[in-house]
Amino acid sequence: MKNQEIERKFLLKQLPPHLNELPNSLIEQGYLAIESQGSQVRLRKKGDTRFLTVKRGRGTVRDEHEIALTRAQFDALWPLTAGRRLVKRRYEMPYRGCTIEIDVYAGSNSGVVVAEVEFESEQAANEFVPPEWFGKDISNRPEYSNTNLARE
Amino acid sequence: MKNQEIERKFLLKQLPPHLNELPNSLIEQGYLAIESQGSQVRLRKKGDTRFLTVKRGRGTVRDEHEIALTRAQFDALWPLTAGRRLVKRRYEMPYRGCTIEIDVYAGSNSGVVVAEVEFESEQAANEFVPPEWFGKDISNRPEYSNTNLARE
Repeated sequence: MKNQEIERKFLLKQLPPHLNELPNSLIEQGYLAIESQGSQVRLRKKGDTRFLTVKRGRGTVRDEHEIALTRAQFDALWPLTAGRRLVKRRYEMPYRGCTIEIDVYAGSNSGVVVAEVEFESEQAANEFVPPEWFGKDISNRPEYSNTNLARE
Repeated sequence: MKNQEIERKFLLKQLPPHLNELPNSLIEQGYLAIESQGSQVRLRKKGDTRFLTVKRGRGTVRDEHEIALTRAQFDALWPLTAGRRLVKRRYEMPYRGCTIEIDVYAGSNSGVVVAEVEFESEQAANEFVPPEWFGKDISNRPEYSNTNLARE
């Protein structure tokens, strides 16, 4: 659990070299509720771990609380995410003191690839110099939000 | 956990006799997310038990899934319900093979009292003959929904 998420999101001009050698895991997630201008409640399975996450707010800085769920808890709630799910493989790449997460979407979002970078402060987020192979900043583009990509 | 909730809700012309002798417990609940026409995700503490509940749909018949939470899980998520909470005391009264739940609201909803009756089938819900002391059927009145009463 943490209380704030400061994050920027980018398109990629090209994939980084040796992508498949980076640590990676399959993420399946689905939404229990998505308020049009506010909170969202998400279930996520990442490898063999399961979480329920609540986010509030939009854009670069958001409140985020997360709890681990048991398999039984997760399985009881998962059916309620029907129609609002997505699958992606996440690759994690260290970069100048932070971590670039490269999300390669699957299923109906095949072809979508985005990079997310999480920061300790808004200042760090503003001062971030993207690597060569990053494209457009899409932090505030709703069409690339996970809740939008989860519309099946 | 169950999968469907079939329920009718009523105002009361008067309280039943001996209300305070009925089994009762204090309920505190708060909402993590409320979609305007859809799902809601609720945290509830009832006596010493804690739950997360997801409901879908409106009116008499709704999908409902519930899981028990540990105290730690509950405490991690509860802060995110700020501004969307309510407190009520629930009295449970057996009545012709079903249970009438009488909810006496507290805090900013003091004075609000409603009765809920849960049924095994839509037919049973339709055939229900309310007791003398029941008032108007408010099953479809949004102003008496818990999500509305939770606006602080």
